[in-house]
Amino acid sequence: MSSEFGNKLRVSVFGQSHGDAIGVVINGLPHGEEIDFDELQDFLERRRGGKNPYSTKRSEKDVPKFLSGIQDNKTCGMPLCAIIENEDKRSVDYSEILDKPRPSHADLTAHIKWQGMADMRGGGHFSGRLTAPLCIAGGIAKQILKRRGIHVGAHLLCVENVYDKAFGITEDSSLFEEIAKKDFPVIDNLSGEKMKERIISASKDLDSVGGIIECMITGVPAGIGEPMFDGVENRLAASLFGIPAIKGIEFGTGFEASHMRGSENNDPYYVENGEIKIKTNNAGGILGGITTGMPVVFRLAVKPTPSIAKEQDTVSISKMENAKLSIKGRHDPCIAQRAVPVAEAVASLVILDMLI
Amino acid sequence: MSSEFGNKLRVSVFGQSHGDAIGVVINGLPHGEEIDFDELQDFLERRRGGKNPYSTKRSEKDVPKFLSGIQDNKTCGMPLCAIIENEDKRSVDYSEILDKPRPSHADLTAHIKWQGMADMRGGGHFSGRLTAPLCIAGGIAKQILKRRGIHVGAHLLCVENVYDKAFGITEDSSLFEEIAKKDFPVIDNLSGEKMKERIISASKDLDSVGGIIECMITGVPAGIGEPMFDGVENRLAASLFGIPAIKGIEFGTGFEASHMRGSENNDPYYVENGEIKIKTNNAGGILGGITTGMPVVFRLAVKPTPSIAKEQDTVSISKMENAKLSIKGRHDPCIAQRAVPVAEAVASLVILDMLI
Amino acid sequence: MSSEFGNKLRVSVFGQSHGDAIGVVINGLPHGEEIDFDELQDFLERRRGGKNPYSTKRSEKDVPKFLSGIQDNKTCGMPLCAIIENEDKRSVDYSEILDKPRPSHADLTAHIKWQGMADMRGGGHFSGRLTAPLCIAGGIAKQILKRRGIHVGAHLLCVENVYDKAFGITEDSSLFEEIAKKDFPVIDNLSGEKMKERIISASKDLDSVGGIIECMITGVPAGIGEPMFDGVENRLAASLFGIPAIKGIEFGTGFEASHMRGSENNDPYYVENGEIKIKTNNAGGILGGITTGMPVVFRLAVKPTPSIAKEQDTVSISKMENAKLSIKGRHDPCIAQRAVPVAEAVASLVILDMLI
Amino acid sequence: MSSEFGNKLRVSVFGQSHGDAIGVVINGLPHGEEIDFDELQDFLERRRGGKNPYSTKRSEKDVPKFLSGIQDNKTCGMPLCAIIENEDKRSVDYSEILDKPRPSHADLTAHIKWQGMADMRGGGHFSGRLTAPLCIAGGIAKQILKRRGIHVGAHLLCVENVYDKAFGITEDSSLFEEIAKKDFPVIDNLSGEKMKERIISASKDLDSVGGIIECMITGVPAGIGEPMFDGVENRLAASLFGIPAIKGIEFGTGFEASHMRGSENNDPYYVENGEIKIKTNNAGGILGGITTGMPVVFRLAVKPTPSIAKEQDTVSISKMENAKLSIKGRHDPCIAQRAVPVAEAVASLVILDMLI
Repeated sequence: MSSEFGNKLRVSVFGQSHGDAIGVVINGLPHGEEIDFDELQDFLERRRGGKNPYSTKRSEKDVPKFLSGIQDNKTCGMPLCAIIENEDKRSVDYSEILDKPRPSHADLTAHIKWQGMADMRGGGHFSGRLTAPLCIAGGIAKQILKRRGIHVGAHLLCVENVYDKAFGITEDSSLFEEIAKKDFPVIDNLSGEKMKERIISASKDLDSVGGIIECMITGVPAGIGEPMFDGVENRLAASLFGIPAIKGIEFGTGFEASHMRGSENNDPYYVENGEIKIKTNNAGGILGGITTGMPVVFRLAVKPTPSIAKEQDTVSISKMENAKLSIKGRHDPCIAQRAVPVAEAVASLVILDMLI
Repeated sequence: MSSEFGNKLRVSVFGQSHGDAIGVVINGLPHGEEIDFDELQDFLERRRGGKNPYSTKRSEKDVPKFLSGIQDNKTCGMPLCAIIENEDKRSVDYSEILDKPRPSHADLTAHIKWQGMADMRGGGHFSGRLTAPLCIAGGIAKQILKRRGIHVGAHLLCVENVYDKAFGITEDSSLFEEIAKKDFPVIDNLSGEKMKERIISASKDLDSVGGIIECMITGVPAGIGEPMFDGVENRLAASLFGIPAIKGIEFGTGFEASHMRGSENNDPYYVENGEIKIKTNNAGGILGGITTGMPVVFRLAVKPTPSIAKEQDTVSISKMENAKLSIKGRHDPCIAQRAVPVAEAVASLVILDMLI
Repeated sequence: MSSEFGNKLRVSVFGQSHGDAIGVVINGLPHGEEIDFDELQDFLERRRGGKNPYSTKRSEKDVPKFLSGIQDNKTCGMPLCAIIENEDKRSVDYSEILDKPRPSHADLTAHIKWQGMADMRGGGHFSGRLTAPLCIAGGIAKQILKRRGIHVGAHLLCVENVYDKAFGITEDSSLFEEIAKKDFPVIDNLSGEKMKERIISASKDLDSVGGIIECMITGVPAGIGEPMFDGVENRLAASLFGIPAIKGIEFGTGFEASHMRGSENNDPYYVENGEIKIKTNNAGGILGGITTGMPVVFRLAVKPTPSIAKEQDTVSISKMENAKLSIKGRHDPCIAQRAVPVAEAVASLVILDMLI
Repeated sequence: MSSEFGNKLRVSVFGQSHGDAIGVVINGLPHGEEIDFDELQDFLERRRGGKNPYSTKRSEKDVPKFLSGIQDNKTCGMPLCAIIENEDKRSVDYSEILDKPRPSHADLTAHIKWQGMADMRGGGHFSGRLTAPLCIAGGIAKQILKRRGIHVGAHLLCVENVYDKAFGITEDSSLFEEIAKKDFPVIDNLSGEKMKERIISASKDLDSVGGIIECMITGVPAGIGEPMFDGVENRLAASLFGIPAIKGIEFGTGFEASHMRGSENNDPYYVENGEIKIKTNNAGGILGGITTGMPVVFRLAVKPTPSIAKEQDTVSISKMENAKLSIKGRHDPCIAQRAVPVAEAVASLVILDMLI
């Protein structure tokens, strides 16, 4: 399974950070779906770094090349393969790291698992760069969902201890689009400015910060998901933990529900215009693993980028002795804002998979 | 997939709360593994309700009957099937509920999905009762893991706003066994007493409370898990959301990491006796989806039991009008303490699956 | 995977020949489908032995007990579990076999794989008896398909060197029903009598014979199946080899096509009443893995029952020396006629799985 | 699933005959395995057409470009992606075909399934060209197996009614290598010459012929495979039907076993040098789905190439009327000889998957 996910819609990601190309194969896309390549490129642009002081200085154009699965700008029912050729790679930066595993990065576990044979230059297959092909796949899924009235939006809810305004019980897709156009993905710009300050401050301290992403999916029909192990929560969680640095996920009130009483957390029902409606959405749109028709809402905990310039304690694998490490590569002082579109991408793929 | 999970070790759960029997089929268990049936029954006893004022009054003996897969008390390599015949079912309690969906329960989504044809008496297949077969499977997995030096323990970390002592960086299996013997699964008994008070107080208010479970798995060798979508976090999350009422999961520092800096959250390495060691375990034993050799640690958010006796707003499906509902069945005012062994069960199955 | 198959419709078979019970769990059955239990029992009766001189003397009533998944005689959308309790088991017959593996049976491979720990009494999980739960599952699938205008029929095309009349390009379901009512599943009764003679003759010689099953599925809509590895041929073959003693499968002209020219084997198209029709069906209803709308046709090679009373060369595992074996159990001198409904069962499950 | 197969070793094939590139992603390859690129190219050369009068005139160099998964000529544990850019495509040849489906090709079923949106130029994703990436993956698997003492060999057993010498009970790998070096994959060159004559004769008649491939895998340890639906036969069959034009598969004596008695078909056991041996191999190396330690042997029925120059009856989809078709593209008068290495490739992948 490893670098693949999905049931009817299968996504397979390949590539290493400093290899020739990274890419994705998607099986099971509905056929005849037009792809708006400009919109897709705009979506990829949201994830791309190298543009400002609060993200990596590595600059990749990230223009995908489509090898199969498309005819006349439409999905043709066959496996779609898209690749991005790596350009701005400087493997020289990583020479020290190959011997001195970066704390809290996959360097050490990869070394143990593949006995030093994994290509870990630039983080190899574990690099955040692999989220680019995920965004190609997810960007296409997002367009297909939009055509079916399903909208996927996310924002940066929190950086360190600065919080953005949270999503309401439901939101119009125009808010999602508005956020997507901003250079920093928040609802409240003032909070955004404070967040950026925190990121730059951490960067100046040769350090990094974490954050929380909030994602909402509106328009999902009721009745999607299967009982027990194939519910919407199971499927979203299983795939979203594939995004590097994600360490937690919660739906609806989530961990807050642990501190609540049933009478507070339960969402009451009522009838309106001959339809059953739900007053609140503490359930995050999912009951018994099955969608209620209310927006699906989840939040992701993003840990602070483990690659920091500050000196850290590590070991030299070759000498088997303690060592110091000051990471010199071009790293994001905060990865959370760039992970916002990635969360949308993965969520779009999972929801589309469960709909077809 | 629905009521099944696992890759090489496949677990398939069946049954409805008020049907003839509930049960489980396990494929891929290692062969020649002795099953200690007394130990297994003790494990099932930890989940069983009907014993005290802070759990359901429904009392089931929960003694499994093994139909296949065992010879001379050992797994024989063939699919293992175990069933529990339902005894203390009172379907009459549920007549009203079938028309008036209980808020925040699967009643409404099941009604929509199966157009009223799902057997939802007592919550049907969505009932917490289905965690009994999960515990049969998980209890066997737990015994097999123990024999390999892997210990799975959990406790109730929080109820409403009362917290137990948290697990340390690592714990000896004797602590897990000690907790397992208690009538209430906490480390600190005083906290336990306060939690019970909260549960009884909620019960008196015809209400319920939520909680948090903390689970630790020690002895997992480094190098388990695959990159991206088949990591230990992905697999644990995918299966643990199959436990009813779970609304969030976090690994290591989890959501707390969002508020931390990299230099705080990173776990430093050092060499001791010719081995690479890790000083802290903020990663929860997992980096890049792969185990580090440190204990795997996760926490689960358990929502307050949605079935409460307090009057709630719902609808009558038959009349399509607003209605009031006061649930009269025998429900747990808190489900979190009974979910503690279930979390251990599911975690044991996932880890065993990833090891074989 | 082992004892499970299916994608959206998942079938999991469990049990050993001489264990307490054998059974099946089915996940993903469409809900609200009425089950005609009499019809199902009739179907199981076709597979059942113990009735005549050309099948085993072991007599089991084979009446399934349904534990879950059914409400008011209809599928309720939840996993369906059905079991058959084993009655007429005489494990004493097998004592010698456990040390002396029966040639061409799974005894030796099971011994190697599970180091003697597999419960191989009566063939254990490899016994033809395990096809009874397959027939429960398949019998239900067959009823559901029939309601959708899809009919699954099979007959014994050949025993040793006696051939029945083959199916025509297409057949009416009444022929399938007619065959199903016969005590011996052939189209031409005269051929059937000759086949029986061969079976009885082999039996008298303390020997056994093989045969060929031909199966046809009419009414399958065009367009079912996916390219390359998820085509109808791939899926049918993958599951049908799960029936014990099957050693070959071919679709349409199959192996005969190897000796033909393209101009002979190609099926010409023509237009009739505004629809594209196909003149012949050498393709067996499948092109590029996808159904053409013509009947799906396949044939299965069934090897002669490996359990024969005639003395055979084997080994004693305990003594590691050559040994002689004359199998004394109650075995079928030909298994092919009893495998006819099993082929229908498995084919029904695969086709239903691919339709939903 | 569609264009993917495998369990732990996952193979995903993409591309259309006349698209920009075709390729394959392989997940789960053991790491640290050296790839001999010259040997791989030689293997691909065996499949390649355009070299002689009995295969297509389309000439592609078929030199793969590796995008990921390799470091220092060794597998690095990460997903391996290899592509072949399409060069010699002449889509103009196919204009007529897009309206007039070629009988017994996937044109019609693809048209029905994807409502004319599938890119079917040159057969699209159904083209035999897609077996080139399969051979890249399989060629690598073959090298890995060889290093473990497992040898995969195949030859053309039959064309029309000319038979090659069959494999013996077991064969030395040197025979496989000898066949691989020949320009026509047979054991007996005289038979090969006769086969070529048949192919050229069919070609002159504007027609095509079918054939049978025999494949043997030596050195597979006993005990590989799982009961019922995950046996070696199930897995090989499921994947081998992914090769275009395959319409039948049989193991060991296969269909011939239908005409045999148990005493003839059973393989007797004996002890030699303290080991259990098997005298014959009618089982084709598989009992109960599990390998016996004897060579795995199967045969594949290859239908005659459906694309023939001879005039055929078809329909015009646009006009919905009968039409005549004389296919003008560059087609193989026999596809069976080119499918020989493809059978080896797929078998290698399946066996490697079942071993790891």
